[in-house]
Formats: sequence, structure tokens, C-alpha cells
Amino acid sequence: MMQPRLTRVTLGVADLARAVLFYEALGWTRSAYASEGVAFFQLGGLILSLYPRAALAEDAGVAPEGQSFRGFTLAHNTASRAETDAVLAHAVAAGGTLVKPAAEVFWGGYSGYFADPDGTLWEVAWNPGLLPLPDGSVRLPA
Amino acid sequence: MMQPRLTRVTLGVADLARAVLFYEALGWTRSAYASEGVAFFQLGGLILSLYPRAALAEDAGVAPEGQSFRGFTLAHNTASRAETDAVLAHAVAAGGTLVKPAAEVFWGGYSGYFADPDGTLWEVAWNPGLLPLPDGSVRLPA
Repeated sequence: MMQPRLTRVTLGVADLARAVLFYEALGWTRSAYASEGVAFFQLGGLILSLYPRAALAEDAGVAPEGQSFRGFTLAHNTASRAETDAVLAHAVAAGGTLVKPAAEVFWGGYSGYFADPDGTLWEVAWNPGLLPLPDGSVRLPA
Repeated sequence: MMQPRLTRVTLGVADLARAVLFYEALGWTRSAYASEGVAFFQLGGLILSLYPRAALAEDAGVAPEGQSFRGFTLAHNTASRAETDAVLAHAVAAGGTLVKPAAEVFWGGYSGYFADPDGTLWEVAWNPGLLPLPDGSVRLPA
């Protein structure tokens, strides 16, 4: 079972500074919860991330050029490493394609990717600092 | 001002029936709130829509082929026609590109599109049957 939950949308951007300026100009506030080279915006219970397009492709382990990479990912945050493994296995059983097996990742979590039948990339991520709340939403730390 | 709100993600799919089968196989329930030729899934306070890719491009008024259309849109549901107009004007003032001016649409709402600096399409939609709740989320009718 994969809980009905979409917790983050990440846009692969050509120029991070330009993208941040645009979303800030919309009136949105970049979260102070930030690492170098990525920007987060809390949109209700959902997170919008901006990340350089090439880095996003590399994160998913796909080629950055051409039609194969559409420049965005969806994410499903889980409550544990075991749930990440179970969700990836379930997605493959449902007809998805395993793009990147779950593994420990540099930001301290455990994450993998599957693709839906049209190639939309879903990251399944356990992030100990960003666990889903009882209502299924996620909230960036202040 | 554009409220910090992302209320729907629409994936342009090659085969709607195949896409629906996949997401149902994940364990998700297709909403009974449906029109012909589109599928909705309630994911927490967010809606995931599946819509034929060519129809989605046509809805935004962009060419369906090539790099110009990435096969997905984000949506910002508003509380009124006037808010739709104001958000589109605000997005253009912020450096976005007006892709489709707001107009009455066949499903009974009032909707337009802008693109962010990377070409990500945002629909700004007033849907009288899907007004944002006080917490900024939207809920499909039962």
C-alpha cells in the first residue's frame, strides 16, 4: 500500500537564483530551512522545491537532456526506511518502473525513485527531519 | 499577492486508462467526482489529476510536441474570478509570462495560465465547485 500522499513537487530549474527571485516576487517566502543550492517554499501542507535541473536529473539517476527527463519530480515522504522499501516494491508490483533503488543519501535520509507509465518520476523518501504528520502533510522546520 | 497555495498537479498522460489503472493499483481511489476523459485522486489537501497529454496542452494553449510542453501543469485555485485576474497580473508583474489570459471555460469556471521563468505552467483557476478552504486546501466533492 502506498498512502495517498503527494508531499513535495520539485522543479528542475535552469538558474536557481532567477527561479527563487520569481517565486519570492509572487509574494512567497523562501524557507529558512535551506541547504546550499536548493530552495524550499511551504505551500499549505505541501513543499515546493527549486533545484538545478542537472542536479535533479542526477539525483534521480537519469540523463538530464532530451525527452527522457521532464524537469520535475513528485515526492512521497514516508515514516521509515522500511516504508520506503515497501512503497517502491508496491509501485513496481503495480506496473511502475524502478528508476533508482532506495539508498542512504547525502542529506541524511533514505530515498529511491520509481516512474509511472508515462515516465513521471516519484521519489519515495524517508527524511528523519521531515516525517509526515498524522494528516499526511509535511511541514518544513522553522 | 498570490497566496502560497498549490492545489492540483495535473499529469499529461499518453493513455488515460493505463494511467488510471496504475494509480489505482498503487491503492489509491479514483474520485467519483469525474467528467469524461479525466481522473482525479484526492491526496490529502491536494488533487492529482490525470488528463490526456494532447488535451492538457490544448487547455493551456501550447503545442503538445517537443520541449516546449513538459506534460504537466500546476494549479492554484482561487476564490473568485477577480482573484484569478489579480493573480495572473501579479505573476506577470513578478516576471512570469502570460500564456493564456483568463477566460470562461467549458467546465463552468474561469481560468488562465502563466509560465514561470523555466516554462513551468501554472493554471490559475476559479472553480465554483472547488473553492479553497480556509486552510488553503481543496477537497473534491464526494
